[in-house]
Amino acid sequence: MSPETEQKIQRSFAAQAMMETLGAQITHISKGTVQIEAPILPGSLQQHGFAHAGLTFAIGDSAAGYAALSIMPDDHEVLTSEMKIHLLAPAKGDLLVAKGRVIKPGRRLVIVQADVYARTGAQEVHIALLTGTMIPVPIA
Amino acid sequence: MSPETEQKIQRSFAAQAMMETLGAQITHISKGTVQIEAPILPGSLQQHGFAHAGLTFAIGDSAAGYAALSIMPDDHEVLTSEMKIHLLAPAKGDLLVAKGRVIKPGRRLVIVQADVYARTGAQEVHIALLTGTMIPVPIA
Amino acid sequence: MSPETEQKIQRSFAAQAMMETLGAQITHISKGTVQIEAPILPGSLQQHGFAHAGLTFAIGDSAAGYAALSIMPDDHEVLTSEMKIHLLAPAKGDLLVAKGRVIKPGRRLVIVQADVYARTGAQEVHIALLTGTMIPVPIA
Amino acid sequence: MSPETEQKIQRSFAAQAMMETLGAQITHISKGTVQIEAPILPGSLQQHGFAHAGLTFAIGDSAAGYAALSIMPDDHEVLTSEMKIHLLAPAKGDLLVAKGRVIKPGRRLVIVQADVYARTGAQEVHIALLTGTMIPVPIA
Repeated sequence: MSPETEQKIQRSFAAQAMMETLGAQITHISKGTVQIEAPILPGSLQQHGFAHAGLTFAIGDSAAGYAALSIMPDDHEVLTSEMKIHLLAPAKGDLLVAKGRVIKPGRRLVIVQADVYARTGAQEVHIALLTGTMIPVPIA
Repeated sequence: MSPETEQKIQRSFAAQAMMETLGAQITHISKGTVQIEAPILPGSLQQHGFAHAGLTFAIGDSAAGYAALSIMPDDHEVLTSEMKIHLLAPAKGDLLVAKGRVIKPGRRLVIVQADVYARTGAQEVHIALLTGTMIPVPIA
Repeated sequence: MSPETEQKIQRSFAAQAMMETLGAQITHISKGTVQIEAPILPGSLQQHGFAHAGLTFAIGDSAAGYAALSIMPDDHEVLTSEMKIHLLAPAKGDLLVAKGRVIKPGRRLVIVQADVYARTGAQEVHIALLTGTMIPVPIA
Repeated sequence: MSPETEQKIQRSFAAQAMMETLGAQITHISKGTVQIEAPILPGSLQQHGFAHAGLTFAIGDSAAGYAALSIMPDDHEVLTSEMKIHLLAPAKGDLLVAKGRVIKPGRRLVIVQADVYARTGAQEVHIALLTGTMIPVPIA
């Protein structure tokens, strides 16, 4: 992956105010895989005191989308067309880690997947699986 | 729908810190349908200045979940098992409106759907369709 | 819808050997909606004597796909990119009826939905809901 | 996995007339994974002469379902509640191979995945990814 592609991903991420609201950060980028971490902030909780599915979805979808972006030409970006999330276990722990990857690259569509884990100390519990479709679009 | 059920929904919603972070409010409850509205706050934007998919998902999933809760016995709540979201158009407008409804009630699973609209003045644009599965669980 | 479009749909359907294996027929075509019916043949059953999910999926996916095709230019066809099916009730009855429709047309993607019913006499039971993505492709 | 569980799976599969119509066979069973193969019969084709998505779905869904069944108590079976399929490449080759596995076991729900490959000689092309939800039900 070129430094330009990595910069493009970092710039796009930095421009997402929602990621700042959620305290999310990119912690790994390589060709075809991107990792995003987020603390479980007091403002990100659901009614039982676990992380809200909206947080899990937001970082899972972003990790999957940036994984797709990491294999795009530099004059393209990607949009989520559809995304399915399975919630596998309560999102409780020190922080959430979303690991996105490309399942099937394509000129018209990129099929992606992400796993989200709740990390407590050195332990990671698999809390969500996302599978979806990204659309490449030329940057205006 | 009994006043107890409506109170249960309002209490559960009020306990979701994420809904406050996003500025979301319940604007309609009836048996089998729930409506949630949210402004597009500066902290809820994605990189193009539209509402983030995380916001659209969060209120769509909640509207669908509370629609399921509105038909549950009062000693049960619901959890999202899985949810698919189709993003149909950019989420730009004055505010977002999520309308959840029950497709198929069941003792073990409730199948739900939600439509999310971006409202500008009197006009609503359909920006997302969600379809998913809620699991009834006895309140501990 | 032009007669050419209707002929294109009928020709495409007639070329699907699987539809003949399943005994399926198109029973209605209009702009944006297509209906397909299939008997529950002895060779289409699952282990409890109901129609197999493969039959329900096949006619639901086809009805949704042809609904998308009904709004395409005549030099394009469509392919299913992804499809989610919720199975709502046992597929038992005289025959299955799949009703496909377009949720969101687009040049790059068409979002579609289909409902499948099991019909017994005059009664229809809703047995499946499908939601998915069709890709328009130029006919070679 | 006990011999009883393997027999339960084989009996259930043998009772599915649709599997015989499609020429499908179980080629591997172990705890948490099941493999099903099917030839691309003349009666299983779509309009371009490739295998129909109905075939790909039917064997992918069955492989995922039997993977779930392989971890169930012997007095339970499973039903598909919902299943999403991504079609990744044209289904052309000598035969199709579906490999199902359990992502997350549970007493109330089992989350499953299946990959379907088109095999030509020694080469396998990944043609579909399925992700879905199975419900355990007591055998009547």
